[in-house]
Amino acid sequence: MILDIINKKRLGKELSYQELDTIFNGYLNGDVYDYQMSSFLMAICINGMSDEETFALTKIFIDSGDILDFSEIEGIKVDKHSTGGIGDKTTLVITPIVASLGIPVIKMSGRGLGYTGGTIDKLESIPGYRTDLSEKEILKQLKEIKVVVTGQTSCLVPMDKIVYALRDVTGTVSSIPLIASSIMSKKIAGGADKILIDIKVGNGAFLHTKAEAKELSDLMIRIGNYYQKEVRTIISDMDTPLGRAIGNSLEIQEAISVLKGEEVENDFVKLCYDLASEMISMSLNISKKEGYEMVKQSIENGSAYQKFLELVSYQKGDLQKMKISKQTKDILAKSSGVLKKIDALEMGKLSLALGAGKETLDDKIDHSVGIYLHKLVGESVKKGDVLATVYYGNKEPIVHYDQLFTIEV
Amino acid sequence: MILDIINKKRLGKELSYQELDTIFNGYLNGDVYDYQMSSFLMAICINGMSDEETFALTKIFIDSGDILDFSEIEGIKVDKHSTGGIGDKTTLVITPIVASLGIPVIKMSGRGLGYTGGTIDKLESIPGYRTDLSEKEILKQLKEIKVVVTGQTSCLVPMDKIVYALRDVTGTVSSIPLIASSIMSKKIAGGADKILIDIKVGNGAFLHTKAEAKELSDLMIRIGNYYQKEVRTIISDMDTPLGRAIGNSLEIQEAISVLKGEEVENDFVKLCYDLASEMISMSLNISKKEGYEMVKQSIENGSAYQKFLELVSYQKGDLQKMKISKQTKDILAKSSGVLKKIDALEMGKLSLALGAGKETLDDKIDHSVGIYLHKLVGESVKKGDVLATVYYGNKEPIVHYDQLFTIEV
Repeated sequence: MILDIINKKRLGKELSYQELDTIFNGYLNGDVYDYQMSSFLMAICINGMSDEETFALTKIFIDSGDILDFSEIEGIKVDKHSTGGIGDKTTLVITPIVASLGIPVIKMSGRGLGYTGGTIDKLESIPGYRTDLSEKEILKQLKEIKVVVTGQTSCLVPMDKIVYALRDVTGTVSSIPLIASSIMSKKIAGGADKILIDIKVGNGAFLHTKAEAKELSDLMIRIGNYYQKEVRTIISDMDTPLGRAIGNSLEIQEAISVLKGEEVENDFVKLCYDLASEMISMSLNISKKEGYEMVKQSIENGSAYQKFLELVSYQKGDLQKMKISKQTKDILAKSSGVLKKIDALEMGKLSLALGAGKETLDDKIDHSVGIYLHKLVGESVKKGDVLATVYYGNKEPIVHYDQLFTIEV
Repeated sequence: MILDIINKKRLGKELSYQELDTIFNGYLNGDVYDYQMSSFLMAICINGMSDEETFALTKIFIDSGDILDFSEIEGIKVDKHSTGGIGDKTTLVITPIVASLGIPVIKMSGRGLGYTGGTIDKLESIPGYRTDLSEKEILKQLKEIKVVVTGQTSCLVPMDKIVYALRDVTGTVSSIPLIASSIMSKKIAGGADKILIDIKVGNGAFLHTKAEAKELSDLMIRIGNYYQKEVRTIISDMDTPLGRAIGNSLEIQEAISVLKGEEVENDFVKLCYDLASEMISMSLNISKKEGYEMVKQSIENGSAYQKFLELVSYQKGDLQKMKISKQTKDILAKSSGVLKKIDALEMGKLSLALGAGKETLDDKIDHSVGIYLHKLVGESVKKGDVLATVYYGNKEPIVHYDQLFTIEV
């Protein structure tokens, strides 16, 4: 039976809801072995899935766990999700902005493997910050301060957890329908009324072409239609790291600078404004332009930053205790000219080598290490200028200058 | 590194010898997990392999174990292989024929899973018959009686054993390059000078179309060229079971009838003559027609049958002790007309249900059960005629008449 289903997908045929249910729930129950699920996932990666199959799989994922219900909280709750990239700390900035305007924001973030930590890893660089809130605690906090940023509750789409862990080690990550059903099932089960997705494209993301990003975007919107949830997407660049900081504590620091309005308008700031405006527009049913004005105000009058401090303190975090490594090494420009490129993937590798990310589940993240970019793409630099500072732990890292930076004379 | 290789094949790119070696030997050594090998095998099933990759994989398979050397035995040794089907007992007939003509024949056969037993299972229905000869014993026997039919020595392509076992449970059997390299590596490592392959096509075989059979044939001939080994192929039908008997002891009995010249010219007898003529032609470098005359003579003068008896007794088998179940059930024709079809796949399923084959490695074969076909395709039958006799064990089987037989009025 299981072999018939695998063979059918190997031949590129469409599977029924029942067949998908049999194999995926069989896997969850232990009746289907890892090695059978992985050959099946590879067949999906190569032969794809129809929309009907993708909707079915999304439903099977959702039904594998609890469906959270935040309907007692007034207002349209918009969940934002990023497909992930190097230096992406937008959640830390936009959730307080939106909440400071009185709009409730629940963000359940992941940890995940990768070159840098996930949002939860970043928040854990603030000593004491709790990332394991229960549904009850989430509700209480939401009522009181309008904002929650925590880890996923363990009962949220448990099937996605085990399937994702297998995909990660079997070369079966790059499948648009698998990515779409994984993300959308978590957002829908998480109780979102509307969903905003930031799709990253570039060498530092897992999607490398605009065409793939468009495909994923369209599919997620169709899944949203199927579930009668409005979905909007923003496709953003990940050839260059996002913002100045890469690494957990450093990224918290950078988020604070943006919330304080200290950071000039760089790509990261622009993306935060863009995403926050979109969330406000979706929640309040107003134009994005109106949303944008509200974002600006929230930063300018300090309410966004205050909301961030409120969030951190409510979840028991102590910013004073956050640590950034004292061991640093500056990377100097080897020539004068215009900084043409900062390679996101190579920065990610350096970040991983420093210990800011983890390669296997057993690795431990060092929250105090990372990279801070003093110069951004497009800026003029002189030979000898400090392009970046590397914060390292035990061992001074090897820096592959030519792979990280490109300066055009 | 392993993930890079899997991803490359997922994208349909060609892998180098080094990459194939890394993943397959990694699997043999336990560094690559089952679930990684299975997603990789599925990528090969769907995206295929180039000739270069297939030659490389064949070499990696061969190099995983011992390479047998029978060069001290005079004469060109031709190894015959069948891709397998229902009622295929040709090996039992053609090896004694060829050996009776003074041509050395070493046949190392498989057991394998399936609807019916493999050649080794069939031979084990002769009590005492040894199927575990060492290379030294094979050599001695070959010198003395010119013929050996035994199981594969454990050191022959060990990689194929573990890869095949995984393919069997992960829906990754149907890949022409994987099938070709699996078969060819065993034949080459087994010390054959020339190779004859009987490729089965039909619903009772794993290849269902002539086009696939031709593709497999061409690929095996190209692998042969690469190793400077002459390869010939015969593509034969497997929509209908081969011959009259299905089941281990019954098939031994049928083989004896053919060797004694008692069986009239049916499809099975024709195929045996065809394969034996080809083997003789290859070994002696004579025409197939000349080979055919020699086959006929060997049957007519009884030397083929004598050679069979010599083989069985040399390997300690006692034909007198062979058992056929006494519990029988006749299947009667429900109408008069011409027997148009005997369904190979359905016969295979019945054989499996009887216990003549095994579905999992833990199942035990019952050598005494099976099916004997009194009527063959093309014959006229009258309502009430005995079409077949079922020999069963503990439990009378359920017979799906309409799926097994088609009679046209």
